[in-house]
Amino acid sequence: VSAPLAELSAKADVLVEALPYIRTYRGRTVVVKVGGAPLEDDSHAAVMARDIALLTMVGLKVVVVHGGGPQVSQAMKVAGIEPRFIEGLRVTDDASMEIVQQVLAGSINPRLVSHLGAAGVGAVGLTGMDGRTVVATKSPGELGRVGTVSRVHTALLESTMTAGFTPVLSTVAVDRDGGSLNVNADAVACAVAVALGAAKLVFLTNVDGLYRDLGDEGSLISEITAGDLRSMLEGLSSGMRPKATAAVEAVASGVEKVHILDGRVRHALLLEIFTDSGVGTQVIR
Amino acid sequence: VSAPLAELSAKADVLVEALPYIRTYRGRTVVVKVGGAPLEDDSHAAVMARDIALLTMVGLKVVVVHGGGPQVSQAMKVAGIEPRFIEGLRVTDDASMEIVQQVLAGSINPRLVSHLGAAGVGAVGLTGMDGRTVVATKSPGELGRVGTVSRVHTALLESTMTAGFTPVLSTVAVDRDGGSLNVNADAVACAVAVALGAAKLVFLTNVDGLYRDLGDEGSLISEITAGDLRSMLEGLSSGMRPKATAAVEAVASGVEKVHILDGRVRHALLLEIFTDSGVGTQVIR
Amino acid sequence: VSAPLAELSAKADVLVEALPYIRTYRGRTVVVKVGGAPLEDDSHAAVMARDIALLTMVGLKVVVVHGGGPQVSQAMKVAGIEPRFIEGLRVTDDASMEIVQQVLAGSINPRLVSHLGAAGVGAVGLTGMDGRTVVATKSPGELGRVGTVSRVHTALLESTMTAGFTPVLSTVAVDRDGGSLNVNADAVACAVAVALGAAKLVFLTNVDGLYRDLGDEGSLISEITAGDLRSMLEGLSSGMRPKATAAVEAVASGVEKVHILDGRVRHALLLEIFTDSGVGTQVIR
Amino acid sequence: VSAPLAELSAKADVLVEALPYIRTYRGRTVVVKVGGAPLEDDSHAAVMARDIALLTMVGLKVVVVHGGGPQVSQAMKVAGIEPRFIEGLRVTDDASMEIVQQVLAGSINPRLVSHLGAAGVGAVGLTGMDGRTVVATKSPGELGRVGTVSRVHTALLESTMTAGFTPVLSTVAVDRDGGSLNVNADAVACAVAVALGAAKLVFLTNVDGLYRDLGDEGSLISEITAGDLRSMLEGLSSGMRPKATAAVEAVASGVEKVHILDGRVRHALLLEIFTDSGVGTQVIR
Amino acid sequence: VSAPLAELSAKADVLVEALPYIRTYRGRTVVVKVGGAPLEDDSHAAVMARDIALLTMVGLKVVVVHGGGPQVSQAMKVAGIEPRFIEGLRVTDDASMEIVQQVLAGSINPRLVSHLGAAGVGAVGLTGMDGRTVVATKSPGELGRVGTVSRVHTALLESTMTAGFTPVLSTVAVDRDGGSLNVNADAVACAVAVALGAAKLVFLTNVDGLYRDLGDEGSLISEITAGDLRSMLEGLSSGMRPKATAAVEAVASGVEKVHILDGRVRHALLLEIFTDSGVGTQVIR
Amino acid sequence: VSAPLAELSAKADVLVEALPYIRTYRGRTVVVKVGGAPLEDDSHAAVMARDIALLTMVGLKVVVVHGGGPQVSQAMKVAGIEPRFIEGLRVTDDASMEIVQQVLAGSINPRLVSHLGAAGVGAVGLTGMDGRTVVATKSPGELGRVGTVSRVHTALLESTMTAGFTPVLSTVAVDRDGGSLNVNADAVACAVAVALGAAKLVFLTNVDGLYRDLGDEGSLISEITAGDLRSMLEGLSSGMRPKATAAVEAVASGVEKVHILDGRVRHALLLEIFTDSGVGTQVIR
Repeated sequence: VSAPLAELSAKADVLVEALPYIRTYRGRTVVVKVGGAPLEDDSHAAVMARDIALLTMVGLKVVVVHGGGPQVSQAMKVAGIEPRFIEGLRVTDDASMEIVQQVLAGSINPRLVSHLGAAGVGAVGLTGMDGRTVVATKSPGELGRVGTVSRVHTALLESTMTAGFTPVLSTVAVDRDGGSLNVNADAVACAVAVALGAAKLVFLTNVDGLYRDLGDEGSLISEITAGDLRSMLEGLSSGMRPKATAAVEAVASGVEKVHILDGRVRHALLLEIFTDSGVGTQVIR
Repeated sequence: VSAPLAELSAKADVLVEALPYIRTYRGRTVVVKVGGAPLEDDSHAAVMARDIALLTMVGLKVVVVHGGGPQVSQAMKVAGIEPRFIEGLRVTDDASMEIVQQVLAGSINPRLVSHLGAAGVGAVGLTGMDGRTVVATKSPGELGRVGTVSRVHTALLESTMTAGFTPVLSTVAVDRDGGSLNVNADAVACAVAVALGAAKLVFLTNVDGLYRDLGDEGSLISEITAGDLRSMLEGLSSGMRPKATAAVEAVASGVEKVHILDGRVRHALLLEIFTDSGVGTQVIR
Repeated sequence: VSAPLAELSAKADVLVEALPYIRTYRGRTVVVKVGGAPLEDDSHAAVMARDIALLTMVGLKVVVVHGGGPQVSQAMKVAGIEPRFIEGLRVTDDASMEIVQQVLAGSINPRLVSHLGAAGVGAVGLTGMDGRTVVATKSPGELGRVGTVSRVHTALLESTMTAGFTPVLSTVAVDRDGGSLNVNADAVACAVAVALGAAKLVFLTNVDGLYRDLGDEGSLISEITAGDLRSMLEGLSSGMRPKATAAVEAVASGVEKVHILDGRVRHALLLEIFTDSGVGTQVIR
Repeated sequence: VSAPLAELSAKADVLVEALPYIRTYRGRTVVVKVGGAPLEDDSHAAVMARDIALLTMVGLKVVVVHGGGPQVSQAMKVAGIEPRFIEGLRVTDDASMEIVQQVLAGSINPRLVSHLGAAGVGAVGLTGMDGRTVVATKSPGELGRVGTVSRVHTALLESTMTAGFTPVLSTVAVDRDGGSLNVNADAVACAVAVALGAAKLVFLTNVDGLYRDLGDEGSLISEITAGDLRSMLEGLSSGMRPKATAAVEAVASGVEKVHILDGRVRHALLLEIFTDSGVGTQVIR
Repeated sequence: VSAPLAELSAKADVLVEALPYIRTYRGRTVVVKVGGAPLEDDSHAAVMARDIALLTMVGLKVVVVHGGGPQVSQAMKVAGIEPRFIEGLRVTDDASMEIVQQVLAGSINPRLVSHLGAAGVGAVGLTGMDGRTVVATKSPGELGRVGTVSRVHTALLESTMTAGFTPVLSTVAVDRDGGSLNVNADAVACAVAVALGAAKLVFLTNVDGLYRDLGDEGSLISEITAGDLRSMLEGLSSGMRPKATAAVEAVASGVEKVHILDGRVRHALLLEIFTDSGVGTQVIR
Repeated sequence: VSAPLAELSAKADVLVEALPYIRTYRGRTVVVKVGGAPLEDDSHAAVMARDIALLTMVGLKVVVVHGGGPQVSQAMKVAGIEPRFIEGLRVTDDASMEIVQQVLAGSINPRLVSHLGAAGVGAVGLTGMDGRTVVATKSPGELGRVGTVSRVHTALLESTMTAGFTPVLSTVAVDRDGGSLNVNADAVACAVAVALGAAKLVFLTNVDGLYRDLGDEGSLISEITAGDLRSMLEGLSSGMRPKATAAVEAVASGVEKVHILDGRVRHALLLEIFTDSGVGTQVIR
């Protein structure tokens, strides 16, 4: 199957660009926080799974982290419980917590494992309770079983990856007494990336990236330092703020780069990791 | 804290009896199928978790397998779906399968993981989809997403145990295309025990054991060969038959002994494994 | 072989008590200084050998140390040499030293090796000359070939244990020039335990333990700190003083506990190591 | 540095095409026989060195094999010796052999090592005498010190690659007595590829590939089986025949594919190994 | 310290002769059965110990085996027991066996350990009871505790050598029940050499070697095949016959060469192993 | 093949002298700088190769380093270039450098590899460019491509030796840009010995050793400290000065001893390393 020289040359250029990245990231860990499109739409999930398959094929170690706020709210409504939020955090009584676990560990997580399996990835669904991977402390006040991450034990994630599997972590945490707590998924992704010494933390979202001025499409930021981003936190939307906060903290704690990508762009993950072209916003030191 | 000589002597006798069993089973695998009391009652679950902690302390490798039929039926009723069975097998449409996953992977499994964690065991909740551990083939007919086990991949269970964790496997299986199937938990426990070359397969149930004559309390069988048990299968109750079938197959496939124990007897697991005293029924070659 | 529930429960309690000790001491070293009954009486030696077999079965590493003062004195008398002592130490001329070696290495040691072998233990008889394991310095004065321990080389003991054998060490030491010296067995046991970083040092004797007041049977001490014991050394009997001195030094040098047990109590070793019940006296920090 | 979606999509397509090849060939060996342009022209040599650097970066093991017929003939003329050939084989007396060694081991080999070094490859220049890597048998007749390969010892090549270096082998062989022999470089490349169980053998030449009809530019063969090629051998040009013979033998002896590429096409190596596009002719089973 | 060229040349010749032997025997096992002079005379023992030190220095693994018939007979007489023999075998009642053990394990063995220690060898005295190394079967008839070797367990010898120590084995064997038996030392040396796959078995004796005609000094045999030696067994002296029998059997069972050397020749061991010069008689296949 | 006792005794004495040296140097590295006779004369080269074979047989690791000044000068003359020197250093333009490489890497190196191969040594010819083993900095001034050693990378030498091969290094160095430079062979030998932590550096020359007074044959120095030698550097001949300078620096940088030997004395290497007899001059701390 021969091809014209110009096309060959263009192909060769992509390879010359990509191969050094493969060397750089081989054996390194990339944490992918999945939100938005890939959670809601099977075709996006399938492309993402294929990308993750290609990443693992050339030796990257991928950890998938997911929450599922909208899906939980919907299940609560079905069960006749009206979702309530205080300062953006879900009020979680015992019955709600049972629903959180069922949706995250019993619905979303198996679906991601299934998509990855179809792409040839040996995926393993975990919660933060497994191996006490994500330990949280109960938040004070009226929020019920809501907590903040206090520690990540990496032993289970590491042994799972060493055995050649890709962990898919749903964000149910464990408290000191072995009970379960509801925690923010962006914060879990950040804590896991830091604990594993990840090279990259990638947020797959439903937006193009971070805008300097939300009303101005032309103000999309392709690269920003963690320091500059920190000074912007106050003005961000309530959806972007936890991601940006996590990005700032991750970079401050040793993660090399954080990417906020549009999960609807096909192969966004591959392009971001293996080419010089940027998709969305990257946060650097 | 001195003690009378007679008491010391009795203690010493237990040790002299137990220590050789510890050597025998050290490093060997025991599959514990949890049903009945420990699934329904937190105090029984806690004692069982403590027993498993002691087993792992002295070097046994334990795999916990659980289903949750009654709990699934109850959740279906809450969701307005009436459970239907054909020849003892649950008719499972897609909506029911979602409930099966949510109950097994989202409710029961995290509760067992939590009890084990409280007893000091590093437990890891898995489904048969993780690492394609339990592969099943869809059953023909009207049953919907119901299958029979066709293969067990042990890599994930083994790497989890090698890393020092105790797997807790809920019996959702994966088909060739990555979809989920509902499978019988006794059969999964049997297949896992055979695949791992387990020394023992233990069924924790809500009955004293196997009776030669169900109406006669005095006919409890303490020991039976797989051959003799096979000839009794037809006459068994519908609850006991899958366990007995699994026991016959497990022994025929290399598992050394199968135990059908009353999960309500405190420390039934410890006594069965470390003493000469029998609790319930053991199936031998 | 079923049993009444109360008996089962009692058995289970012993296991629940013992299994954590097994985990604690697995892979740890216990030095057993054998004196009194087990040296003189074959039936006691056989039970002790059985206990040591059980200890090694569950993964403890045991080193047996023995002397044999009474047996040496008897052999000297047969050979027409009258035993002489200066301040409790045997005057040992060259002819006496030959008898010491013949009795310890040629009679007592093979007998212990034989008892252990009959219990299934792969025992290896050694003297302190082998691998220069126990190096001593000749004592000044009229005592002849008597010395005090100056160094323990653990390489031979460790390689022997690593290969799965149990060393049985008779207390003939080697001096700088390769010659043999007669040394106190309690002191050798202490030095060996310290050098190996042993968890426990156990003296099997012919007495119930240590008494606060030798004339008062009710004053048996079940537990004492090394500090308190040090202040009692002056008042002890000549037989107990070397053991107590060794116990004080062993605890001061890192051995966790020293036990002075009555070797005539059946299974004294098992009970002391695997249960909460005390037999005799234990010396702690 | 953002880019239009179409360009991103094209890049992603190349990656999706290339990454599975990377997994396939990672850790596999590729033997590259260098002739023509890269030997004569520093700019071609530099691009080739860069390609080899990229191959080794993503985990392929490359062995470079080279001869240098034209350069030897030129050096002989300078030294006043007229090159003579019998049936295409150089008549090689002792003085000529000295020149062969000086040109191959003293001129061409260091130049390739230097180019590879400049591209970041840790190259190691070897002759077939080193570690008796290429053993040859003296040809009968008037040819002098000319031989045919009788055995390849791979130990030195393998230890060199294991240590992370890339061997560059000039085709001076050793006879049984330790003397040097002149051997055909295409045959050496074939023998080395077979002995190493190489995945690929690549001939970098100065032609487009193999033509079915030398006079017809449109008859370039992109893929041919070894069997079909064998039947064409007689009709090939004297330059192509040794390569084609080597290709037939390599494939028959287990090398998966042999490629005859135009070394003047930039990045021919990369394109051939990592894309579906063919450059030149590939010989398959 | 310069030296005349002729002397240097002679030295170099010895090295050129010896170094290949060092390579040949490095890591191989040599069993040395010590009898005669080195047992009776401290100065011979010291030279032999020095030779063994040199052998171990350059990487040979040496096992020393010894008996001590004359010394046992003398000790029995001192104890008032008259030695009795039936067909060359000592009648050994229980009291005699105690003396055998005391002399071999308590006197001779420590003396050899001490000599080796003085030469820098980490020696370890063992009996055949240790680690059940030499298992024997009681001989029928009136001989009492006399046996023939039925099995050699090499684990203890091998772990001792792996740890860098040199075993010194006295020929007390263990029977099935753990009791001790008196066995022929030449036969033990043979069985140990065979079990260890030794390269050489060396008998150090008090004679020049084997004579074809005992009355003719000129008939000393420097080399003989095992087959020829077998046909001579009947005619040999009672002292030589067990050695010759052992030699025949050792060679038949895989030991490469057996040497019967005069232990009174200084450095006989070194010369035999590292030079082309023969001392005494060697038995070959 | 028996021998008179006196001859045996003399042989034994050589062994007793040599064996401890074998232990001392086993696994240690010896760098042999070859000059003079062995480069020019095949019979000397053959004996030297045999000695190196014997050294490697008993476990020493040998690195051979060679230059080839006279041979280069001769080849330059043949090519019509008149050798020029500035302060003893060869003026090396590009054409001359090509000749240097051809002579060292293409003529001398293969000859040494061939001699070693004939003696059974698996030799590997390398230049300082291979694996960037010898990095040099271009000297200022008119000298052209002449440099001084700035760094030795030992990875290639070590992996070659670990694989059981003996490196033969010709002294062409690589500069930062991958180009080749001409460097002094004595200085390379010193730098390699220091970088490898060699036990010994041996210069094989055509002189008896170092003389205190060049005109006085009786003033040959058998042993000198590096300090004393440093004070003599100024007065040395131009041939000896680089060796002496290298010797002083090697000893100052951790090489235990440096030997300046007469390569014409048969087996000079063996005698120097394995006996107490000195040949030539040794430089100590």
